[in-house]
Amino acid sequence: MPNIANDPTRKSWIEVPKNSDFPIQNIPFGVFITKEDVITIGTRIGDSAIDMGALQQLGYFEGIDLTDDMFMQDTLNDFISDGKKTWRLVRNRLAEIFDSENATLRDNEKHKEVVIFDVKDIEMLLPVQIGDYTDFYSSKEHATNVGKMFRDPENALLPNWLHIPVGYHGRSSTIVPSGVSVRRPNGQTLPAGATEPVFGPSKLVDFELETAFITTDANLMGEPIPVDQAEEYIFGMVLFNDWSARDIQKWEYVPLGPFLAKNFASSISPWIVTMDALEAFRVKGPEQSPTPLPYLQQSGENAFDIHLEVAIQPENEEETVVSKSNFKYMYWSMAQQLAHHTINGCRINSGDMMGSGTISGPTPDSFGSMLELTWGGKNPIQMKDGSERKFINDNDTVIIRGYCENKELRIGFGECASKLLPAVAIK
Amino acid sequence: MPNIANDPTRKSWIEVPKNSDFPIQNIPFGVFITKEDVITIGTRIGDSAIDMGALQQLGYFEGIDLTDDMFMQDTLNDFISDGKKTWRLVRNRLAEIFDSENATLRDNEKHKEVVIFDVKDIEMLLPVQIGDYTDFYSSKEHATNVGKMFRDPENALLPNWLHIPVGYHGRSSTIVPSGVSVRRPNGQTLPAGATEPVFGPSKLVDFELETAFITTDANLMGEPIPVDQAEEYIFGMVLFNDWSARDIQKWEYVPLGPFLAKNFASSISPWIVTMDALEAFRVKGPEQSPTPLPYLQQSGENAFDIHLEVAIQPENEEETVVSKSNFKYMYWSMAQQLAHHTINGCRINSGDMMGSGTISGPTPDSFGSMLELTWGGKNPIQMKDGSERKFINDNDTVIIRGYCENKELRIGFGECASKLLPAVAIK
Repeated sequence: MPNIANDPTRKSWIEVPKNSDFPIQNIPFGVFITKEDVITIGTRIGDSAIDMGALQQLGYFEGIDLTDDMFMQDTLNDFISDGKKTWRLVRNRLAEIFDSENATLRDNEKHKEVVIFDVKDIEMLLPVQIGDYTDFYSSKEHATNVGKMFRDPENALLPNWLHIPVGYHGRSSTIVPSGVSVRRPNGQTLPAGATEPVFGPSKLVDFELETAFITTDANLMGEPIPVDQAEEYIFGMVLFNDWSARDIQKWEYVPLGPFLAKNFASSISPWIVTMDALEAFRVKGPEQSPTPLPYLQQSGENAFDIHLEVAIQPENEEETVVSKSNFKYMYWSMAQQLAHHTINGCRINSGDMMGSGTISGPTPDSFGSMLELTWGGKNPIQMKDGSERKFINDNDTVIIRGYCENKELRIGFGECASKLLPAVAIK
Repeated sequence: MPNIANDPTRKSWIEVPKNSDFPIQNIPFGVFITKEDVITIGTRIGDSAIDMGALQQLGYFEGIDLTDDMFMQDTLNDFISDGKKTWRLVRNRLAEIFDSENATLRDNEKHKEVVIFDVKDIEMLLPVQIGDYTDFYSSKEHATNVGKMFRDPENALLPNWLHIPVGYHGRSSTIVPSGVSVRRPNGQTLPAGATEPVFGPSKLVDFELETAFITTDANLMGEPIPVDQAEEYIFGMVLFNDWSARDIQKWEYVPLGPFLAKNFASSISPWIVTMDALEAFRVKGPEQSPTPLPYLQQSGENAFDIHLEVAIQPENEEETVVSKSNFKYMYWSMAQQLAHHTINGCRINSGDMMGSGTISGPTPDSFGSMLELTWGGKNPIQMKDGSERKFINDNDTVIIRGYCENKELRIGFGECASKLLPAVAIK
């Protein structure tokens, strides 16, 4: 089925500001609540949020095989379950409805009133009920940086890293959408030189610049997903801040991996940008040497050129951009991650989320965490307000942005912004 | 509210075989499907499964504040959300309905026909939709055995182990109820002496003898659960086989912990035995030295005397019991695990599951995995059919059983039994 929603020449009758992440060629999917407390599935063009539940009730999706309440739900899980053909039909239809040449909705003021909202007047919710969340560790630069700092600078990469898209399970219950503040965690840490741990608020709260992909029902338990089919099961991507408490992590993570250092909060951008929308921004990924085992071998362009940046905004002050990276640096592709995840028969469900791991680029200003940017706190970052940062301070807001751009188009993710509140006092 | 369901003198008008795990004092909760394809929440007395959806429709729960379809659901999550007071009211009511002195249902043949089924005629389903699953590592004997084998025999326990109930996140999507077969996983392993990994079926599939507890909604994100309140949020317990592929685990688990070595399958017993039912079997846990940090300190009896055993049954052969252990050996209590899990503000939802970690006792015949029982395959186990086992063979069924017993009562979990099928062939 042709992906007509991607036509770069199409204009919308909804105004799209210059440099918007959301031209009519994007058509991401999300869930929002209106001022009247109506929860709906929707999309976004420019600064307008579009109520797809209302559109469906008004008959705008007629001819597409959808359950009656498909978009009047508080998660996208059922829609995602319907599979790639349906996603494309719906995205194509939305492109047609909002095409500047199409008068049907454009000239129907009554319909527009119940369908279109200013994004300032809605609140974005978590777009999916995340069943299982996995985080990978697929940036070679990040793994190398961490290895240099904490293990052996001469053998920074562990022996398995070039063979396995290393990943681990995370906590779904504390994944929140952009805009929701998170709390500095309390926990155990081992002060330098001490032999007994102490308790208190983490002193080293960090962001991790990541993206994440959302899957559809992909397999039955016991069935692997071949790498060359894996992308069929990826609905789309979001920006992802994998909040991390470095001091808690250091004390707890051997031998079973990070736990409380990560599961206090993770933040995602609320609009899921579909893989269809990202199609024009495919690029070749880094060369993989040694050649991976056959179940991980791919050819062609399996990476995506997504510009990423992180800013820190102290309370009531101007933000400072602290990192500029790119998703294309990832050593392992999303398809390889999904093929690896299922090679043992692990079942993948609609709404599962898989993080990329921290996306660090090759240069020091492209590193994806304060741990790397300040090299463990040794080189503080100068902020525009005159302050310094080794890690994240209370009441700082961390903002991740991401977009793709070519001569014709800019397709973006908006923001993943969340404020770090002070720790809860523990008696 | 008095816990009248625990009265050891009560008899049921339903016949309970000698040594049954399910006297009228147990009243566990589960979900089953009948031959007529009706899915319902239910309980069990002796070898009778009781349809609580039907009981509710017939008015037997009148006077208890429940939604109309509380038990006509395919998971216990909503019931668990209602909290401890409701669990106790319902359990007390069930004790009364099936008390030998109570003629109401006993003498109503029409009602009995739609309420009571032979357990042979129903199929048990997963009792809860598990949002997040965490596995702890709280048996000192198990952690010591593993440390001796893989790290330093002189310093087998890692420095954090006596301070932290070490845990990590697992995969919810592949947790299956007893009776569902699982597949030997394929994956990468590093043969002894090799520098490059190879691909194929795991050669070292193991069970892990565990229990798990199921939580209710316990806190908002950011809020810790104090250790002395933690048990209020535990609905009940199940037996748990945390299937593990030791060779995959060894190659993948540094630095982020086990992933594909575990997430191919985990099996649970289908009847959740409530904490109320286990109350009579409280015992003091092991002494904790050094004293834990204040947020983990407890007094009183926080362990439970639950006899556990594991049997391996080769296809069409008699089973061999390979381990006898006890839940009381756990170093960290469930309340400590839950308090630790939330000390950083991690949110706990209804239906979350937390595994104990492998429960090994102090003697070699009480170890909770083949890894330990055969000491890494060095000392094979002799089976009754004349064969030997270092790990689990294709088509072996692993059966975990568990029960509490005192002079008056036996409260048990039934079985967690699952067969290991051969690996899928990968092209």
